[in-house]
Amino acid sequence: MRPDAPSRGFETAEFAARTEKAQSLMAATGLDGILLLSEPDVRYFSGFHTLFWQSPTRPWFLFLPASGKPIAVIPEIGAALMRQTWVEDIRTWSAPNPANDGISLLTELLSPLAERGATLGIMKGHETGWRMPLGDWERLVSQLPGLQFGDATALVQGLRMVKSEAEVAKLRHICGIGSATFERVPEFVSAGMPLEEVFRAYRREALLQGADDVPYLVGGADQGGYEDVISPPSRRPLQQGDILMLDTGSTWDGYFCDFDRNWAIGTPDDLSRRAYDTLWRATEAGFAAARPGNSCSGLFQAMQGVIAEMDDQGGDIGRLGHGLGMQLTEQPSHAAFDQTELKEGMVLTLEPSLGYGQGRIMVHEENIVIRADGAEMLTKRAAPELPVLG
Amino acid sequence: MRPDAPSRGFETAEFAARTEKAQSLMAATGLDGILLLSEPDVRYFSGFHTLFWQSPTRPWFLFLPASGKPIAVIPEIGAALMRQTWVEDIRTWSAPNPANDGISLLTELLSPLAERGATLGIMKGHETGWRMPLGDWERLVSQLPGLQFGDATALVQGLRMVKSEAEVAKLRHICGIGSATFERVPEFVSAGMPLEEVFRAYRREALLQGADDVPYLVGGADQGGYEDVISPPSRRPLQQGDILMLDTGSTWDGYFCDFDRNWAIGTPDDLSRRAYDTLWRATEAGFAAARPGNSCSGLFQAMQGVIAEMDDQGGDIGRLGHGLGMQLTEQPSHAAFDQTELKEGMVLTLEPSLGYGQGRIMVHEENIVIRADGAEMLTKRAAPELPVLG
Repeated sequence: MRPDAPSRGFETAEFAARTEKAQSLMAATGLDGILLLSEPDVRYFSGFHTLFWQSPTRPWFLFLPASGKPIAVIPEIGAALMRQTWVEDIRTWSAPNPANDGISLLTELLSPLAERGATLGIMKGHETGWRMPLGDWERLVSQLPGLQFGDATALVQGLRMVKSEAEVAKLRHICGIGSATFERVPEFVSAGMPLEEVFRAYRREALLQGADDVPYLVGGADQGGYEDVISPPSRRPLQQGDILMLDTGSTWDGYFCDFDRNWAIGTPDDLSRRAYDTLWRATEAGFAAARPGNSCSGLFQAMQGVIAEMDDQGGDIGRLGHGLGMQLTEQPSHAAFDQTELKEGMVLTLEPSLGYGQGRIMVHEENIVIRADGAEMLTKRAAPELPVLG
Repeated sequence: MRPDAPSRGFETAEFAARTEKAQSLMAATGLDGILLLSEPDVRYFSGFHTLFWQSPTRPWFLFLPASGKPIAVIPEIGAALMRQTWVEDIRTWSAPNPANDGISLLTELLSPLAERGATLGIMKGHETGWRMPLGDWERLVSQLPGLQFGDATALVQGLRMVKSEAEVAKLRHICGIGSATFERVPEFVSAGMPLEEVFRAYRREALLQGADDVPYLVGGADQGGYEDVISPPSRRPLQQGDILMLDTGSTWDGYFCDFDRNWAIGTPDDLSRRAYDTLWRATEAGFAAARPGNSCSGLFQAMQGVIAEMDDQGGDIGRLGHGLGMQLTEQPSHAAFDQTELKEGMVLTLEPSLGYGQGRIMVHEENIVIRADGAEMLTKRAAPELPVLG
């Protein structure tokens, strides 16, 4: 462990503050409770943190009442871990049980709301999914006549977008680990190395630098630029004239960094150097525009103004950055459609991209936190000129 | 890369065979198409393989028509990678677009089915989720009056349960990597090492042994046995008298192993030794019962019969093993409720567990494939007596 690591987990006061803020907003928006199903939403209000969510077999539920602590309705296998959190009311069943995976417990919990025609908040908006069988949900709803539903997406995502200082400390820590790993790349990557082995070496180094895990690692390498930014690595060896990109989502205590770096293998071509310079300056423009009171749309325009020197499409990534936290990508989006106001405490990526040459694409990415007087860089800034690996 | 690694990806013929089998079953069960949303389901029929699914921002859709190749409806950022698969009809939009994230494209695709009152298969049964915003789904359905819906869960899960030899080769490869990593544990784990560092060292070794990634690693260590099997690691150093368990879900080319190993730190207590012996014999009983024609329920009973010598509850895990493949856990479940018949080509875990002592739990796990004349072990069998780390 790095000596500068912050402490793991959060104080109980942080979960209480999150819950009270949610309850205050629930009262203002007419929600009498919120049912949460997803790993980050459940973790945000409870502190329940486990990789076991990777098994899709069992659903997990956390109910935020109008007042008081959250109530957990979970498989018995999670009871011991949930008892270590601040949650006190923990209701469990022996799961999996296809005939009744928590449905009776939820019916009992929600029936009082249904009987008085109350409104249950659910997460059904942009960037959400529904982590339980749709058939079970339909069955549950049919057993709760009178229950009204409201969309809690904006409420929950709005809270999660603004990070506490304890969250920022975790994000800064993993960004530091990612930066230190990228700095070591010239020591373990060189021409002739298959991209698959580059990925493996990067993962091992990130763990050595203190990452808990490297759940996300993508990249590309090809002559005069890469063509794709989401593929798994090939066995193709790095060659002179390649542009290499690695994009990492490494984690520490359940929080992600998400940024990338580019390198030339040997002397780079002029067009790739120009693309790099354009994106480096686009990031600078985004950083300068990242202040409270500006919007995601404004941040997008600031970067797009520079990118347009080379490419008026800005690649086909769909946006030029996003929120960052317990998930690799979170709301908001730096795109023309997103009018979200930038607020102190938001942790964001700046991710300008452009298309160039014969179907080539280049992406840059840094991670920042919005402060009262502007942005603070959490990653160690990329070099201003395309670095060369021997 | 290990010299014995199978090739990555699959032949086009394999995707064609999977699709034809599905279409034959669709015809027999009255489904005129199936809409798939989840990463493993989309990958199973298309070969589209990327870690980018970790970003929850964008939905991805694959439509299986009654005949012909699947049709992809995906964000533009995935088009280059999808073009490398056997899928030819690829329809994209610039995502994210909260106002219209693929909904117009899906409406256009599905309208002909709606107009003739056809039945669309969707995945709404046990062990499924819904990987798109529920609000968008409701909007889509409202735009397709006349469309009927059928549950395609049994059809798709039934196909995915039985692995091809190419899939078994990948699973055997990652099980071999996991086994080799566990064999090295005595070289890098000893008393005094914090559990967090044990996890980090295990991950680095698994990568060195050839794993692409270690998405899942849980475990526990405590005096006379561990209390919990899904927690992240603590900073507590291993002590004489601890029982240590590590449970890994490592991957190679998108396929998981899922098994664990137990060790004593110094001389083990008698009760832990007895629990180990009981579970080792329960695994033997499960292995002997794992033959075509037996059922998951029968497999469960075979293991439970041995476990009952010490514990008539079998821990609180809810089942004694499950299917394994592109996901850490897949159907079926070794539990009294699951009457699924064992078939040649099924890859399964045997995972007996028991509660003992003062709130202690122990789990054993191996991975097998069902063959015509019985089971084949994919993992290197655990030692018959609880191994001791110095």
